[in-house]
Amino acid sequence: MDLVPPPEHSPTRAELEVTTLGPRAYGSPLAGLLAGRRTTEHYVAEDDRVLLDDTVSALAAHEGLADLPSFEPGGPRRRLFFDPRTVRAGIVTCGGLCPGLNDVIRALTLELTTHYGVRRVLGFRDGFRGLVPRYGLSPVALTLESVSGIGESGGSVLGSSRGEQDPEEVVDTLQRWGIDVLFVVGGDGSMRGALRIAECARSRGAAIAVVGVPKTIDNDIPFIEQSFGFQSAYAAAAEAIRAAHVEARSAPAGVGLVKLMGRHSGFIACYAALAHRGADVVLIPEVPFALDGEGGLLDHLHRRVRDQGHAVVVVAEGAGQEYLPASRQRDASGNAKLGDVGVLLRDRIQESFARKGEELNLRYIDPSYAIRSVPANAYDSVYCMRLAHTAVHAAMAGRTAIVVGRWRGRFVHVPIPLAVSARNTVAPDGDLWLAVLEATGQPPRLGPPLLEPLPAQWNTPAVRTA
Amino acid sequence: MDLVPPPEHSPTRAELEVTTLGPRAYGSPLAGLLAGRRTTEHYVAEDDRVLLDDTVSALAAHEGLADLPSFEPGGPRRRLFFDPRTVRAGIVTCGGLCPGLNDVIRALTLELTTHYGVRRVLGFRDGFRGLVPRYGLSPVALTLESVSGIGESGGSVLGSSRGEQDPEEVVDTLQRWGIDVLFVVGGDGSMRGALRIAECARSRGAAIAVVGVPKTIDNDIPFIEQSFGFQSAYAAAAEAIRAAHVEARSAPAGVGLVKLMGRHSGFIACYAALAHRGADVVLIPEVPFALDGEGGLLDHLHRRVRDQGHAVVVVAEGAGQEYLPASRQRDASGNAKLGDVGVLLRDRIQESFARKGEELNLRYIDPSYAIRSVPANAYDSVYCMRLAHTAVHAAMAGRTAIVVGRWRGRFVHVPIPLAVSARNTVAPDGDLWLAVLEATGQPPRLGPPLLEPLPAQWNTPAVRTA
Amino acid sequence: MDLVPPPEHSPTRAELEVTTLGPRAYGSPLAGLLAGRRTTEHYVAEDDRVLLDDTVSALAAHEGLADLPSFEPGGPRRRLFFDPRTVRAGIVTCGGLCPGLNDVIRALTLELTTHYGVRRVLGFRDGFRGLVPRYGLSPVALTLESVSGIGESGGSVLGSSRGEQDPEEVVDTLQRWGIDVLFVVGGDGSMRGALRIAECARSRGAAIAVVGVPKTIDNDIPFIEQSFGFQSAYAAAAEAIRAAHVEARSAPAGVGLVKLMGRHSGFIACYAALAHRGADVVLIPEVPFALDGEGGLLDHLHRRVRDQGHAVVVVAEGAGQEYLPASRQRDASGNAKLGDVGVLLRDRIQESFARKGEELNLRYIDPSYAIRSVPANAYDSVYCMRLAHTAVHAAMAGRTAIVVGRWRGRFVHVPIPLAVSARNTVAPDGDLWLAVLEATGQPPRLGPPLLEPLPAQWNTPAVRTA
Amino acid sequence: MDLVPPPEHSPTRAELEVTTLGPRAYGSPLAGLLAGRRTTEHYVAEDDRVLLDDTVSALAAHEGLADLPSFEPGGPRRRLFFDPRTVRAGIVTCGGLCPGLNDVIRALTLELTTHYGVRRVLGFRDGFRGLVPRYGLSPVALTLESVSGIGESGGSVLGSSRGEQDPEEVVDTLQRWGIDVLFVVGGDGSMRGALRIAECARSRGAAIAVVGVPKTIDNDIPFIEQSFGFQSAYAAAAEAIRAAHVEARSAPAGVGLVKLMGRHSGFIACYAALAHRGADVVLIPEVPFALDGEGGLLDHLHRRVRDQGHAVVVVAEGAGQEYLPASRQRDASGNAKLGDVGVLLRDRIQESFARKGEELNLRYIDPSYAIRSVPANAYDSVYCMRLAHTAVHAAMAGRTAIVVGRWRGRFVHVPIPLAVSARNTVAPDGDLWLAVLEATGQPPRLGPPLLEPLPAQWNTPAVRTA
Repeated sequence: MDLVPPPEHSPTRAELEVTTLGPRAYGSPLAGLLAGRRTTEHYVAEDDRVLLDDTVSALAAHEGLADLPSFEPGGPRRRLFFDPRTVRAGIVTCGGLCPGLNDVIRALTLELTTHYGVRRVLGFRDGFRGLVPRYGLSPVALTLESVSGIGESGGSVLGSSRGEQDPEEVVDTLQRWGIDVLFVVGGDGSMRGALRIAECARSRGAAIAVVGVPKTIDNDIPFIEQSFGFQSAYAAAAEAIRAAHVEARSAPAGVGLVKLMGRHSGFIACYAALAHRGADVVLIPEVPFALDGEGGLLDHLHRRVRDQGHAVVVVAEGAGQEYLPASRQRDASGNAKLGDVGVLLRDRIQESFARKGEELNLRYIDPSYAIRSVPANAYDSVYCMRLAHTAVHAAMAGRTAIVVGRWRGRFVHVPIPLAVSARNTVAPDGDLWLAVLEATGQPPRLGPPLLEPLPAQWNTPAVRTA
Repeated sequence: MDLVPPPEHSPTRAELEVTTLGPRAYGSPLAGLLAGRRTTEHYVAEDDRVLLDDTVSALAAHEGLADLPSFEPGGPRRRLFFDPRTVRAGIVTCGGLCPGLNDVIRALTLELTTHYGVRRVLGFRDGFRGLVPRYGLSPVALTLESVSGIGESGGSVLGSSRGEQDPEEVVDTLQRWGIDVLFVVGGDGSMRGALRIAECARSRGAAIAVVGVPKTIDNDIPFIEQSFGFQSAYAAAAEAIRAAHVEARSAPAGVGLVKLMGRHSGFIACYAALAHRGADVVLIPEVPFALDGEGGLLDHLHRRVRDQGHAVVVVAEGAGQEYLPASRQRDASGNAKLGDVGVLLRDRIQESFARKGEELNLRYIDPSYAIRSVPANAYDSVYCMRLAHTAVHAAMAGRTAIVVGRWRGRFVHVPIPLAVSARNTVAPDGDLWLAVLEATGQPPRLGPPLLEPLPAQWNTPAVRTA
Repeated sequence: MDLVPPPEHSPTRAELEVTTLGPRAYGSPLAGLLAGRRTTEHYVAEDDRVLLDDTVSALAAHEGLADLPSFEPGGPRRRLFFDPRTVRAGIVTCGGLCPGLNDVIRALTLELTTHYGVRRVLGFRDGFRGLVPRYGLSPVALTLESVSGIGESGGSVLGSSRGEQDPEEVVDTLQRWGIDVLFVVGGDGSMRGALRIAECARSRGAAIAVVGVPKTIDNDIPFIEQSFGFQSAYAAAAEAIRAAHVEARSAPAGVGLVKLMGRHSGFIACYAALAHRGADVVLIPEVPFALDGEGGLLDHLHRRVRDQGHAVVVVAEGAGQEYLPASRQRDASGNAKLGDVGVLLRDRIQESFARKGEELNLRYIDPSYAIRSVPANAYDSVYCMRLAHTAVHAAMAGRTAIVVGRWRGRFVHVPIPLAVSARNTVAPDGDLWLAVLEATGQPPRLGPPLLEPLPAQWNTPAVRTA
Repeated sequence: MDLVPPPEHSPTRAELEVTTLGPRAYGSPLAGLLAGRRTTEHYVAEDDRVLLDDTVSALAAHEGLADLPSFEPGGPRRRLFFDPRTVRAGIVTCGGLCPGLNDVIRALTLELTTHYGVRRVLGFRDGFRGLVPRYGLSPVALTLESVSGIGESGGSVLGSSRGEQDPEEVVDTLQRWGIDVLFVVGGDGSMRGALRIAECARSRGAAIAVVGVPKTIDNDIPFIEQSFGFQSAYAAAAEAIRAAHVEARSAPAGVGLVKLMGRHSGFIACYAALAHRGADVVLIPEVPFALDGEGGLLDHLHRRVRDQGHAVVVVAEGAGQEYLPASRQRDASGNAKLGDVGVLLRDRIQESFARKGEELNLRYIDPSYAIRSVPANAYDSVYCMRLAHTAVHAAMAGRTAIVVGRWRGRFVHVPIPLAVSARNTVAPDGDLWLAVLEATGQPPRLGPPLLEPLPAQWNTPAVRTA
C-alpha cells in the first residue's frame, strides 16, 4: 500500500544513470564511523544497485532466480479454499497492548462480512483464555455495528491476556463453535501458540486455517518492516522524551531519565530519540555499555551535566541486563522477567552524584502504559486495515500457520516457524544506530577507550537469532 | 531506515514455503472487482514470488541481472568529491508549503556541520528569488543554534515562492557566494529549475552539485514511495473528514463536502478516507465520474441521503476538471490553474436538491492551508532527517542533477530527468483504490450501468505519464 | 465549580489591605488608551473594592440589600416538585453545533437516572422537529449504556435543526409521551421557543418544567460568563490563526485572512487572537472600521506587509456588515442572513494590491465547521457536566422557563425573558479589547485620524441590547 | 477577563424572578448526600440570592458595606509610582514546573516593554539562586525577540530551583542591577521568600516593588479561583486516567492505579476524574479512607473487580499519608517529604489479591513529570497573559508584597501574608467532591459502616488552614 507502482514505461538503464561531478578525492570524515561496518543495506559497495522490479516472474528470463529465497505475496486470490457463504471466523487478541488492536479487529470483521459475505464472525475474549472452557468466557458476535468506531479507543475490545492454553482444548472449542478460520493477533509467544493450534487441527484432519497478525510494539518480528502501532508508539514515546527534556532544562543539574519499551530491540528508543532530539544518551539491548569507569555512562553523564547544565538519558528496558541479577522468572507469555534497568540507573546515577557531592535533580519517567494504550494514529490505522485485509485473503485461500508480513513494501506470507525463529534488532553497524549516535552526540562506545580495533563481535548484532 | 535487515542467516527456500489447507474450490466474491485487473504489485499471479534480497550484487551469479534497470543506492561513501573543510553549502525551499520543510532544513544543516564539518551553510530566502539579485534578499547563515527547534513549527523558516529564475543569474549568485553544493527542496517545477541550474553550472565548468529533496504533498513524484510530510498531511485531512462527518450526521439531510489537495493524484483523498471512515464517496483525478444521469454522483448522493440521512463527499482538487471550463492560466510554478471543483460540486449539489425539492444541509470544507501548515509528525520528522542525510551524502560524493528517493525501502539516487518525467498516480485497478471503494461503499463506477465489459482504458491509469 | 470557597476563617479588612510603596507621581503611558473609558469592571476607581462574600444572606445586616438585583442560585434542593420515581424527562438539542453537546446530553441523562432515579429519559431528534409529528421522528431512549462515551465525539447524537415548531403541537407531543421535564439545549432562538412551550403548557395547566441549557459558540448569552464549548472553540480557532500565520510568513507578501464565528459578538476572534499571537488585525462586530482611506484597513494592511513582509487578519463573521448589501433573508432560526465579510475582504484586499501593483499572496481560511465539530476539551467536558447538573436540580425543584447560567463563579437561574433580552458583547472600552489591541499592535481605530475627541458613542458597545 | 459585563440596562428585581411550577412535595433522593452539609457556596438556603453587582462603590448607599471584607481590584491605574522610562524590572521563576511559566514570562516582558515602555527587563536564572552571587548565574536580558514563541514549550526558559536564598543577599543583587520591580513566579514557599525580600528592601528604604504571580499546579493558593496551568495539567492528568482505563479494561482482573499531584489538595485528581470518567475510586488528602477492613479501599476494590472485571483508582500524592511512616525530611522548598502513597497502594493491592488467591493485573502509572511539563493550552495561555498584565499594573502603581489573584471573576490584589496563610482545599461537603462521588460511584466513605451519624469533623475540611 505504501508502495507506489513504477510508471507505465519502465525507465531504461541509461535513464537511471546518475551524474557525478568527477573523481572523489577526499576521505570522508564519517570514515571512522564506517570503518568496522560491513556492506549491508546501510553501507553499500560502490557498484551496488537496487533492482527496479524484484518480482521473480518479472525476472523470469534469468536462470535460477526461481530458486532464490523468496516470499509468497499476499493479496486476494481468484479462488478460495473456503466457501464464504458458510465459513465461520474467529478473532482473538493476545499479549500486551499495542496501538491499533481495535483497528485490526474492525478491519478483519469488515473485510470478512462486507467483501467475502461471511455471516458469522466471533470474537474470543481475554486472549487464548476465551478459547478454553475453564474461564467461562463465551465469545461475542462481531458485526458492522459492534465494531463501528472502536478504532477511536486504545486497547482491545476483546480483552487480552498473556499465556498459552492447551491446543487440544482450543481446537475442541473451535470445533464446537464451528470455526473454520482463526485470526490470532499477538506477539511471538502467541504465534507459537497459534502454530500449535494449527498443528493440532491438522493432526485431527480439521480444515482450520490459523493466520497470525503479528503484534509487537517493539518492532522485533522479522519480515515485518514496521509492526502495526509502532509509529503511534514512538510518537508517544517521543512525548516522554520531550517531558524529560523540559524538566531537565528547567532545573539546575537536571537529569531526565526515560525508560521505554524494548525487551530485545531498541527500535522505540531509537526512533523516539530521533523524533524528539532532546536525548543525550540512548541505551539499547543491542549495544552494551559500561556503567562505571572512564568513559562509562556515569562518567559521560557527569561531564554532560557539567558542560551543558542538564542531560537526558533514554533507556530501553532490555538494555544493561548484565548489571542486574539474572532472573529465572518468566511471565505468562514465557518471556524471561527482566530486571528493572530504569530503577537501577536511577539509583546508580543518584548514588554517583551524591558520592561526588555534585548537585543532581533527577526526573525518572516510565511512561510504558501511557504509550501502549494510545489509539492508532492515521498511518497505523490505515496500515492495520491493510494487514488485516491481507490476513483475510490468506485465510480464505486456505493458508494456515502463517503470519502476514511486509517485505520491501510488499505484503507477504511468512510461515510462523520462520517468523518466530529470529528477531529484528537494531544493527549496531546500521544507519539507524548511526543516526542515533549523530542525533545524540553520544560516543559510539560508552566505556574505556580501546587500544585495539573494535573486536569483531562488537560489529555484530547482540541478539540476532533467537 | 524503515527497512529492517533480514536476520543473519538467510532463510532457505523451504523455510519460506507456506502451508495450504488444500485445493481451492470456491470462486472469490471479489472476483468481480478483480476481473479487469492485470497482474501487478497489487494482484499477483499464483506463482509470483518476491525476492528476499534484491540487491544486484547479491544476485551476481545470475547472468544478465546487471543489465536490468536498477538504482544507485544512497548513503555515505568512503570517499568524497568535495573537501568538507572548505565546501560551502546552500539550501533553498521552493513552491507550496508541506509539513516537514523545517525538519529538512534542520537535518541538512546538522549533517553538514556536525558530521562533515562543513563551516558555512547558507539559507537562500523566498525560493529561487533569494538566488537572484533582483529581489535584494541576502542569504542567512544556518547554524546549530539558528535551526534548533525549528521543526516544531510548520512552514519554512527560509520562506518560499513559486516560479523559476534565470539559471545564469542563479549560478552567478552561487559563484559569488562560493557555493559548491546547493540543496533544492521543492516540487517537480523546482526540480526542473534545479536541473537547469546544474546544467548551467556544468556548461561553465563550475563544480557545483545540485541535489534535490523532492517535496510533494500530493505524493506524486515517482520513485519516492512516500513523500515527506505526506503522513502528517493526510492525518490533518482525515480531521477535516471527521468534521464533515460530525456536521453531516448532526443535521437533517446533512451533506459534508470536503475538498482536499491532489492536482493529478488522489493519494491524500484516498489515505485520509481510509484513516477516517466517514466518507461515502471519494473523487480523484485518476477515476472519471459522471455528475448527472442515472448512477451519476448526484443520483448516488440523493440515494445515500434518503437511505442514510446524511452523506460525506471527499473530492481531490484535480478531480472532475472535465466539468469546468478549461483554463489557459498558469501559476508561477507553471502549473495550469485548475477550476474549483469544490465550488462546482457545492453549487451543483445545492441546485439538484433544490430542484427536487429535497431538504439539504450542505457543509463545504476546504481545509487546504490548515493541512499544508501543520508541523511534521513524529514519523515525518524522522523521515525528513533521513532524506536530508541521504542528500548530503550524495552531494558530498559529487552527485548532481539528482533527487534523493526511496524505493522498496531503500534510499536511492534518481536522476532529475527521470523524476520529472512522470507522476505517481493512484492506480484505478490497484489495491489502494480497491480499499477506498470497500471503505466507502461507493460503486466502482459513478455513471450509467454498462452493458458491456469495462472498456480497456478504464483499467488503465488516467494520468500515468506526464 | 470553578469557585473555590474562601478559607474557614474569613480574613479581616486589615488582612486584606495592600502595601503601597508611596504616592504615585507618574502618569501612565496607558492613559491614552484609558482616556475615554468609564469606571467599569475593567477600569476601577481608586477606591473601588470587591466584596469577599456577595451572597445576600451573608450581608443580611445591611439594610435594603435584599432589594438589590440578585439571582436565585442553582444547586440541589432538599425538596422537589416532581416525584423522581414517576417523572419522565425529555432532551432536545437545537441550532448549530457547538463542542460539548454530547457531554450535556450525557450528564443530564446520568444525573437524572443515577442520582434522582428517574426511569425514563427520552431524546427527541433533530431539534424541535422531533417534537412534532410531521417529521415522523420517534424519540430514542437515553440510558447509561446509550450515552456512554458519546462525549468523545463532536456534534450531537440526537441531531439538531434550526427553527421553531408550533408550541401547541410540541405540548401535544410532550403530553402524549408523558414528559414532565423538558431540557432544551440551544441558542437564543431556541430559548424563545422553549419559553413559548413553557407558556403553552402553563396555559393548559400542564405541570411541565422547561429548562434551558444555553448554547452559544459565540459566548453571547448574558449571565453566562463563559458558554459551554467556548474554550474548545477558541482553541480550535487559534489553530486556524496559527495556520494563517505559518502560510503568511512562508510566502513573499503573504497575507493570511481568517474568518471566524461571531455574528454579533467577537469573543472567539478576540480570545483566539490572544491564544495564538500571530494576528496583526482583529475585526469584530462591536468595533466599526474604515475599509478605505487613510488609516483604514487596506491602508494599514499595505503598510504592515511592506514593513513586516506579511500580515494576518482575523475577522468575525458579523464585522463590517455595513460594507455588505443588507439582506432581508433569515435562516430557519430567524437570524438575519449575514453577508460574507470574509469573501468581501478577500476580494477587496486582492483588488487593492493589484491596483497598486504590489505583490500579494493571500491565503483565505474559513474554518467554521472544523471549529464547531470538535469534541469538548477537558475543561468544557467538566463544565458541561456542571451546567447539566444545575439544570436537572432546577427542573426537579419545579423551576420552568429558565436557563441555567453562571455569574461570578456561581451557578444561577436566569429567567428566559431576561436571557434573551440582550447579548454579551465585547466592550470596546473593556480590558479584553484592550488586550487584543496590545497583542496585535493594531491602532485603536482603523480609519482617518480624528480631529476631535472620540464621540461618545464610540465608547459604547455597538450592539449591547438586542 | 472571563467576566462578561452585565448588559447596559441592569435588570430589575422583578426581571430576575424565577417561575416555579408549584409547591415542592417530594423529598430529594440526594437528601442523604446533602444531610450533613452546611449552607455554603455549594448548598444554598432557599432564600439565598447572589448580588448582580458586588462592587462596593455600586452599593455605596448601603451603610456599613465599606467595612466589609473586600479586595483591592487589579488593573491599570492612571498614575504610577515608578517612572516607566527609567524603571528596571526583574523576573524569576521558582519551584516545580507548571504549564504556563513561559507564557507568564513572555506576557510580563511584553506588557512592560510595549505598553509601559520599560527599557530593561532582566530574567534571573534558576529561581532565587540567580539572585545571589554564590551560584555565578548572571541574568539574561528579556526582549521582544528573546521571548517570542517561548510559550510553545513547557518548562521555564529561565530555569527554576527550589529553596530560598538570604533576603539580604537578594536585595544586594537587586540594587546592584538597579532593579525597581521584581516579579516572583512561584508557589507558597517562594511567596514567603518574596515577602522577606520585600520586607528587607523596605527596611533599607529601597523602593523595590515585589509582586508575586502565584504558581500552584495543585490549585491550592487561596483567592486564586483557578491557578494558571491548572486546566492544562488536569487535561494531561485525564489522559493518564484514560490510559489506566484502557489497560484495566483490556486485561482480566485489570486494575489501573494512577498517582497524581496534590500534596494537600485533591483538585487535579478530582477534575481529571470528572474530565475522563474511567475512574472507580478517587482518593484525596482532604478525605480520609480506610485501607483494610469491611468497606475499606481494598475490600471495595475486590468487589469492583469481581463485579465489573476491572477497576481504576486515582490517588493524589498527599492522600493516605497516615498509612506511611512520618518523614522528618523536607525538600529544598521546605515542604515535608511525603511518603509514596502510589507505591504503598500498589504493594498493598498486590498483596491483598495474592493473599486471597485472586487474579490481578495491576498497572501503576505515575505521570507526574509528563503533566508538569506540557505547554499551556489555549485557555491557560490567555489566562497567564492576564495575570501577568495585572501584576505589571500593580507593580508600576507601587504595590508590593502582594500576589495577583482572581476572585469571583475579578482580578484582585492579595497581600502575601494572606495568600500564604491558608490553602484551597476540596471541601468534602462541597459540590466538587459530590460530583466526583457521583461520577465514580464510590461510596461517600471508604470504611466500616457507621452506626452513628457522621462525626462533625467529617464534615469539615481536613486541612483548611495551614
